[in-house]
Amino acid sequence: MFSISPSARLRPSPFFDATVAEGVRAFTTYNHMLMPTSYGDPQAEYWRLINGVSQWDVAVERQVQLKGPDAAVLAQILAPRDLSRQKVGQGKYVPLCNHHGVLINDPICLKLADDLFWLSIADSNIWFWAQAIAAERGLNVEVSEPDVSPMAIQGPKAEDVVAHVCGDFVRDLKYFWFSETTIGDIPVVVQRSGWSKQGGFEIYLRDGSRGTELWNIFKEAGQPWGIGPGNPNWCERIESGLVSYGGDSDTTTNPFEVRMGKYVDLDVPDDTIGIQALRQIAATGAKRHTLGLVLEGDTPIAPGFSWNPIMQNGRKMGDLTNVVFSFRLKKNIGFALVSADLAIGDVVQCQIGGTSHQGRLTDLPFL
Amino acid sequence: MFSISPSARLRPSPFFDATVAEGVRAFTTYNHMLMPTSYGDPQAEYWRLINGVSQWDVAVERQVQLKGPDAAVLAQILAPRDLSRQKVGQGKYVPLCNHHGVLINDPICLKLADDLFWLSIADSNIWFWAQAIAAERGLNVEVSEPDVSPMAIQGPKAEDVVAHVCGDFVRDLKYFWFSETTIGDIPVVVQRSGWSKQGGFEIYLRDGSRGTELWNIFKEAGQPWGIGPGNPNWCERIESGLVSYGGDSDTTTNPFEVRMGKYVDLDVPDDTIGIQALRQIAATGAKRHTLGLVLEGDTPIAPGFSWNPIMQNGRKMGDLTNVVFSFRLKKNIGFALVSADLAIGDVVQCQIGGTSHQGRLTDLPFL
Repeated sequence: MFSISPSARLRPSPFFDATVAEGVRAFTTYNHMLMPTSYGDPQAEYWRLINGVSQWDVAVERQVQLKGPDAAVLAQILAPRDLSRQKVGQGKYVPLCNHHGVLINDPICLKLADDLFWLSIADSNIWFWAQAIAAERGLNVEVSEPDVSPMAIQGPKAEDVVAHVCGDFVRDLKYFWFSETTIGDIPVVVQRSGWSKQGGFEIYLRDGSRGTELWNIFKEAGQPWGIGPGNPNWCERIESGLVSYGGDSDTTTNPFEVRMGKYVDLDVPDDTIGIQALRQIAATGAKRHTLGLVLEGDTPIAPGFSWNPIMQNGRKMGDLTNVVFSFRLKKNIGFALVSADLAIGDVVQCQIGGTSHQGRLTDLPFL
Repeated sequence: MFSISPSARLRPSPFFDATVAEGVRAFTTYNHMLMPTSYGDPQAEYWRLINGVSQWDVAVERQVQLKGPDAAVLAQILAPRDLSRQKVGQGKYVPLCNHHGVLINDPICLKLADDLFWLSIADSNIWFWAQAIAAERGLNVEVSEPDVSPMAIQGPKAEDVVAHVCGDFVRDLKYFWFSETTIGDIPVVVQRSGWSKQGGFEIYLRDGSRGTELWNIFKEAGQPWGIGPGNPNWCERIESGLVSYGGDSDTTTNPFEVRMGKYVDLDVPDDTIGIQALRQIAATGAKRHTLGLVLEGDTPIAPGFSWNPIMQNGRKMGDLTNVVFSFRLKKNIGFALVSADLAIGDVVQCQIGGTSHQGRLTDLPFL
């Protein structure tokens, strides 16, 4: 493990002080910010998410705010998914593509008002992208980054904790729907969402000066349910088949290759960026797809900074884009972004750190 | 110091293995890649750059390649600096701005051919930006990321080392001019450049599979001159007044605020992005400017992840965007991005980590 050097290019989150108080040990960077990735006990952090309730600093999920008379027009131009029936208070998961149909982000699009949207983004610069498109098309819309920082409460006991703090109305929120509210006098948006399949909520803090305060409200309220610190969990997300933009995709990946085809609507307006290319790919079929890979053996493999090549009969057929030792399956598993010629059940080899591992392709999710 | 967690979102450089062999201890992230920031002996690394020759992995300075009949048109649309007389083999430092004149990157623009340019970028996504503009304006140009990774040789003895490896022609290269050549059979571009004021070259490796090989050629050739590993040096760059895009700028900064006004040509064509806004700012004067700040006291202050507020008479007047204990000046120094109302010689206060420090504004560079 290497240290990360301080620099103002890498911004701390409003919850930074709170996570330091919790004993954070490691970070990754995401949208030019620091995101906690370990509090030093991976097994405890994993099982807390699976069986209990976990509190995450995910302020790095920044908002690209579209505000003005043409906000809805711009949202639809950016997203090849039909947003025409999206309601105020509803979030929708949308792939964003460039003009060639290449995936450039996969945000949740929150509609706060008819003229106000947030794209709650993964790790790539969509402010520049949206500003360029808005300006070049002469749209009357302001693209900005508001002071909004999500904190996630995840796990089977998350709903009890969030209902205890915010009120029972949160139990009625459908997936990705949200409500603007306050906690004491702290302004927040509460949404049923989060980057795990264990259920939970994201609390979008709307005043960055109050991060420690908000963190501690949930930390204290969650004690009866055994709340503790965690983060988007590398093991759980792979078990659950959750794709990481930029981690599991490259500069040529389209949505169909990473199991996002169901979020593409081919009948969106013709001025939607990338839709012509996506219609073409849908017609001819994508050249790659993402499957699971279960490796033989039960010695945990450490993840690295690179993809690992997947071979069959001595030919490179794709890449293993992540790998983890599953605490539930007791096997090393990962995502295989491979040629569409490969299918579930196929046996392949994967080179990881100089060692060749044999494995079998599977469906996703693993669990 | 916190650890950095492995993830394929953060790509290693072709020189990663070589830097690990050199004993790299810390990294930062930059353009979704890892850049070494410490080999464990900051003083030795600093004096090696000041007095000798230092070898840096700066592969994170990625290239945004513009290729095709409209490549030159796109370069000029993106850059509010006159490129009409740029020669093949010449690099030019260019501020890139959005439509509001806000700085979004400050690359070196290398002209490799009339229809082939590289923007050797700082830490922000200019591929998306350039792709958006090219597509929206219907230009016949391909925007891509080629397999090109710079390594820097910096310091007063750098020229001797690079001439020994590449030939004496490098001694005749003017600043930012470059030559396409090979080292053995490794394809490279050699340019007089580098993010220090101690002189030197950048060797752009054009085959990512040969990073260790190239590193070791310079490591071995440089032994008579005492070459050793280093990185863009936090202390030297502040002493020298070198601005870090994203570190010393924010989402409203224009080039005039960060000492880049001399690289803006107001008479570029009207379709250059941001030029109307820049003409307006030039006419009325920028609201902020960047000065140096020398703090009282001689106890070294550690840099953090945030800017630190600069106050005068109890009012916030701007921010200290970086801070370092200068090994040559024996003082804590940094850049003050402050109201244009403040001037050289003014005494201000700066809050750093809960402590108020007094200091005096100065001209830049410090040395």
